[in-house]
Amino acid sequence: MREEASAAAALTTRRDDRLVMKFGGTSVKSIDRIERVARHVMAGRAAGYKVCVNVSAMAGETDRLVDLATSAFGNKAARMAEYDTVVSTGEQVTAGLLSLVLQRHGIAARSWLGWQLPFQTDARHGAATIHEIDTSSLGDSLEAGEVAVVAGFQGIDEEGRITTLGRGGSDTSAVALAIALNAGRCDIYTDVDGVYTSDPRIVPSARRLDQISYEEMLEMASLGAKVLQTRSVGLAMRYGVPLRVLSSLGEPGESKVFTQIMSEQEIMERRVVSAVVPSRSEARVDLLGVPDKPGVSAMIFTALAAAKVNIDMIIQSQSRDSASVNLSFTLKEQDLSIAQSVLAERKSDIGYTEILADQNVAKVSIIGVGMNDRSGVAAQMFETLSSRGINILNISTSEIKISVLVSSEYTELAVRALHDSFGLRQSSA
Amino acid sequence: MREEASAAAALTTRRDDRLVMKFGGTSVKSIDRIERVARHVMAGRAAGYKVCVNVSAMAGETDRLVDLATSAFGNKAARMAEYDTVVSTGEQVTAGLLSLVLQRHGIAARSWLGWQLPFQTDARHGAATIHEIDTSSLGDSLEAGEVAVVAGFQGIDEEGRITTLGRGGSDTSAVALAIALNAGRCDIYTDVDGVYTSDPRIVPSARRLDQISYEEMLEMASLGAKVLQTRSVGLAMRYGVPLRVLSSLGEPGESKVFTQIMSEQEIMERRVVSAVVPSRSEARVDLLGVPDKPGVSAMIFTALAAAKVNIDMIIQSQSRDSASVNLSFTLKEQDLSIAQSVLAERKSDIGYTEILADQNVAKVSIIGVGMNDRSGVAAQMFETLSSRGINILNISTSEIKISVLVSSEYTELAVRALHDSFGLRQSSA
Repeated sequence: MREEASAAAALTTRRDDRLVMKFGGTSVKSIDRIERVARHVMAGRAAGYKVCVNVSAMAGETDRLVDLATSAFGNKAARMAEYDTVVSTGEQVTAGLLSLVLQRHGIAARSWLGWQLPFQTDARHGAATIHEIDTSSLGDSLEAGEVAVVAGFQGIDEEGRITTLGRGGSDTSAVALAIALNAGRCDIYTDVDGVYTSDPRIVPSARRLDQISYEEMLEMASLGAKVLQTRSVGLAMRYGVPLRVLSSLGEPGESKVFTQIMSEQEIMERRVVSAVVPSRSEARVDLLGVPDKPGVSAMIFTALAAAKVNIDMIIQSQSRDSASVNLSFTLKEQDLSIAQSVLAERKSDIGYTEILADQNVAKVSIIGVGMNDRSGVAAQMFETLSSRGINILNISTSEIKISVLVSSEYTELAVRALHDSFGLRQSSA
Repeated sequence: MREEASAAAALTTRRDDRLVMKFGGTSVKSIDRIERVARHVMAGRAAGYKVCVNVSAMAGETDRLVDLATSAFGNKAARMAEYDTVVSTGEQVTAGLLSLVLQRHGIAARSWLGWQLPFQTDARHGAATIHEIDTSSLGDSLEAGEVAVVAGFQGIDEEGRITTLGRGGSDTSAVALAIALNAGRCDIYTDVDGVYTSDPRIVPSARRLDQISYEEMLEMASLGAKVLQTRSVGLAMRYGVPLRVLSSLGEPGESKVFTQIMSEQEIMERRVVSAVVPSRSEARVDLLGVPDKPGVSAMIFTALAAAKVNIDMIIQSQSRDSASVNLSFTLKEQDLSIAQSVLAERKSDIGYTEILADQNVAKVSIIGVGMNDRSGVAAQMFETLSSRGINILNISTSEIKISVLVSSEYTELAVRALHDSFGLRQSSA
């Protein structure tokens, strides 16, 4: 498999007896937790699976290693080969420890590091892209009855230096392993038991979804739902890998409590809206008095793109004098100061009169593949918010998502109202 | 090179422009200390050397990793492949960090892990023996002007699993690298500035030796002087690698304060005795009433050897009834309880009447290649102790060492008296 490949599902038949199980940092944060992971693995074996486990670093360990590397070199360490040499040890330790615990329980198990497979990537240290995973030895080990414990997040480049996959790396390496092994499924164990219709801290009546489509999950992940990393969902979608999200804290065994992420066609229950997702890390910028002539918008957004600022929700409106326009857009709060300085530098080139910034905004989105062929969803959303007296500042839509920008004080109210309005409440049964 | 090779110095000419510098755990225990190490390395480069650095794990890190592995598997973890996978990350982190610090100072540097060289060993995990070090890439890197930072203590076996060298490992890998690179010298940086005539905590007038022979150093290390690991001294002696012991806390630059370990022939200053070494971790066992017939001693010492108990200082004396003998020997305190239970099990086979154990004993040794061809050294030692009223319990000798067992309360008195008697005091000049 190539992470960047232009799509095309795996050509070979899926091997349903092979299971990839992925455990994140909180699931392996102590030897006690690793014991519990081992019991999940043993339950998988007892159910007849050949199990390949993918593990993260113990919670807190990656931060400690990143701090050391940063103290050694400064903030630019994150793109260095040596940074990856340091940071990748976190997963190496967990892989060794889980193998030891399994062996203590009499289970044949061995750890696999990126270089031992090898797990080939490009040489972009700290943010590598997967090129190819050689699973010949790994497959032999699985077929011989061993549990394969693979250190997540890490690979090697063509020169044999250690690389790491960067943000989203550990879920991504699990999905990539499932593809390379033609595994029947990839189970992502985390500290919640699945994907919810909304954030339960805001909406107590939020319920776990039994199924969700790749497309919806991708929107949720990119809107900031932390349960799965965007990049891993994209990869799973491209290759059609069945994914499950489930809790590592639950009892080991064939759990019935999880969310299955699958292609839209396979989903039985048809819902218009699957989830309501809040995101508070937004900011809005208003450029007033922008000359209404060709090329000005391009100039603005090219300059921001060059500074790696991602822009969302663009609205252009005529200003009162009608010779100029007002341009409004949203971006991540953390990018606001960069955007402001980029635009200040270009003020005379662009020719705007004033720049306003607002951090007291939040984005609330409804997501659902069903809205694609059902009209009136947007109207229902706006009506719901309006009836609560919530003013909509900006709007953006995709085929399966509508996002609105609201004043941040209305976030919880908006989320709860939409969750109710689209019938997502937990049934009282 | 082969660690277990039957001797024979390196055939190729030594490359005096190549220098191996080894830094132990306390020398790299923080980023500040690693900064200091980097300055030593830069001083080495400034003096014209192509520098290969060998680093240990940050102080405390190996203990932390060993604890994790032991919690995961139990005490037998130390012989498992996964144990080495976990424990070897300590040196990997240090190698990455030192490379980052050097790069921040504008020095081309890269880390080398055991598998990247490769540093080939046998498969005895936790206690591996070096088979061969491939220095082709490492040598190219040095010749290209890079500082090579090698993670100490680790290698890989024939199957590509990570191994560690076990006790004495980090000094040993530095010496092995010096041999494989034909380096002109191997500098061992530690927290003291050399090898002393005795333990300065006991003998305030102890002085640093400018030179000491491999043979003497080997005796000192095996008697428990902690400055260098026995195995590394043996390896250096076999291949004639010039070693220096010096302090990483001193000012970087061509230090004149160190101890050079070299072959006896090269040493200018001829001393009868070079050092007085105390060892408190001794115990004495007396077996009374052992039948005086052939094969009994063999039975005793074979049984102890099978239990991996090393025996020292054996004395056999006729008992009063003259039909039996008393057998007295010393061993490491930590082995005493094993020895007692082995001997208790065999009591009826051996036929002794009583077993006595004494932990209140200490071994005091004088070491010097000069005593080999000077008579009267033993007499002077015994006379010195006798004049202080110190009773000698057991004696053992080699060509360059005389050890006596004394009651442990006399340890300091014995060491100071011998240090004076053999003229080892710091000159008042």
